[in-house]
Amino acid sequence: MSATSTTTDTAGTTGKPAVAVIGLGNLGQVLAERFLGHGHPTTVWNRSPAKADALVARGATRAGTAAEAVAGAELVVVALLDHDAARDVLASAGDALAGRSLLNVTTGTPGPTRELAAWVRDWGAEYLDGAVYAVPQTIGTAEAFVLYSGSRTAFETHRAALDLLGTSTFVGTEPELASVYDIALLSGMYGMFSGFFQAVALGDTAGIGAGRITELLVPWLNATAAALPEFAASIDSGDYATETSNMDINAVGLANILRATEAQGVPTDLLTPLQALFDRQIEEGHGAASLARTIESLRKPRA
Amino acid sequence: MSATSTTTDTAGTTGKPAVAVIGLGNLGQVLAERFLGHGHPTTVWNRSPAKADALVARGATRAGTAAEAVAGAELVVVALLDHDAARDVLASAGDALAGRSLLNVTTGTPGPTRELAAWVRDWGAEYLDGAVYAVPQTIGTAEAFVLYSGSRTAFETHRAALDLLGTSTFVGTEPELASVYDIALLSGMYGMFSGFFQAVALGDTAGIGAGRITELLVPWLNATAAALPEFAASIDSGDYATETSNMDINAVGLANILRATEAQGVPTDLLTPLQALFDRQIEEGHGAASLARTIESLRKPRA
Repeated sequence: MSATSTTTDTAGTTGKPAVAVIGLGNLGQVLAERFLGHGHPTTVWNRSPAKADALVARGATRAGTAAEAVAGAELVVVALLDHDAARDVLASAGDALAGRSLLNVTTGTPGPTRELAAWVRDWGAEYLDGAVYAVPQTIGTAEAFVLYSGSRTAFETHRAALDLLGTSTFVGTEPELASVYDIALLSGMYGMFSGFFQAVALGDTAGIGAGRITELLVPWLNATAAALPEFAASIDSGDYATETSNMDINAVGLANILRATEAQGVPTDLLTPLQALFDRQIEEGHGAASLARTIESLRKPRA
Repeated sequence: MSATSTTTDTAGTTGKPAVAVIGLGNLGQVLAERFLGHGHPTTVWNRSPAKADALVARGATRAGTAAEAVAGAELVVVALLDHDAARDVLASAGDALAGRSLLNVTTGTPGPTRELAAWVRDWGAEYLDGAVYAVPQTIGTAEAFVLYSGSRTAFETHRAALDLLGTSTFVGTEPELASVYDIALLSGMYGMFSGFFQAVALGDTAGIGAGRITELLVPWLNATAAALPEFAASIDSGDYATETSNMDINAVGLANILRATEAQGVPTDLLTPLQALFDRQIEEGHGAASLARTIESLRKPRA
């Protein structure tokens, strides 16, 4: 873990920007450890103060209130349950926000993020939104990446600290952009989880253990994920010509799978919506098109 | 491609078992090329004979009927659209099947596969079912793997030829076992595709191209797929204790995503069924359990 890093220094003597971490759930804990372990003077605050104990033992400063945490920090990192919680806590900090950079890694959605950003800027702070792609265990490793949007100034000023979390990418100045990526990538993940559970349930009907299915499924998913850039290229170009696996073939294949799934006594609900999207493409005359054309069944209708 | 392999030999002079490939769709074509390229005397048959032209030009023998193709082969590979087509074509071969090994790579489902296997064995042939995990382009490469079930004799006798297709794994003597793996792994893939389309549709609402979303999505899927063995271990052990991301956290997260998805004007149908499974676990009191416990919402009810 990062906290054991040999670059640990006494807080306050490193010249590194002071950081406050507000919210010490799984993610907030690890972020605070990471800043602390790399010599940032780190102040922490959590509604239930006991969550700060381990960090304080390692050299973090415990703030009595969110306003107190904010007051001493150049970079304020907010890692709360949702944007309502973030707003409540920040409102209690009030004027203390002025002139600081606020990084919000609370998982948010585009509309509320846009509103929160405007509100934070009204207090005189720079708003930076961060979407963290990592489980707490991988923060700071090569696997972790974080997408940032909003204040480019805040991003550039605190780049060194941000890079402690994972690979940093600035995706644009509209504050909600990171949250659009966030819901997109998490939707992708939940789709994969749907497939995983479906696969395990099917294996189960023939006495095949989840471990055995997964051992084969993971490399298969990795191999098929490698085909997604080709789908993406079709979508971006609008050229859905294909010589291999078209909509008709996939619709027949998936219908067979769903029939067999039912015959095995497993619910098909997780995959029937995809079948409906294939069927709509076929009804519209695109049976010979690339499977990538499924997106057209789903795409937001153009004005 | 395999057909350019330097081990190519004149058909008939290699001592390698004679192979027939029945059905020359995308997969059948590549399988025939592969056998041919590695010195197996290869006879091909397809309902529309023109599909055999390129293979014949490379040294394959064209059979006038399926029966003729079967008659000269030790290993008969069937790659048709579905099991009904396989049965029709094999019925036309009739007695010619006796004493041969039949490998069926037609995508099948457990019930019909069991029936077809029994029917083939009644004709005096060994039945081997193969589930091919590869796109035609990757057949014979390190990425391709094939699961076999049914006749262990046929598997062992023709192992060298089978290994030309990809990594061979024999999963059991019940003929339908490969097809259970097949529908399980393909269900996993279609779940991932659901997530992919959802992600692209969301990115689209903010002007983010499919290529850009995919560039970030693929490594993210690979990273999260690496967590699936941990879920599988929980499922196999029935121990759903977790200290990280539990059912409650995921249910809140997914509900937020779906609300935001709606707000962006994108249909949520692909992921609402997963949300329903999470909710059912929470209603049953398992909100603090691992997300892996979702399987219990889906699992075939035990007798």
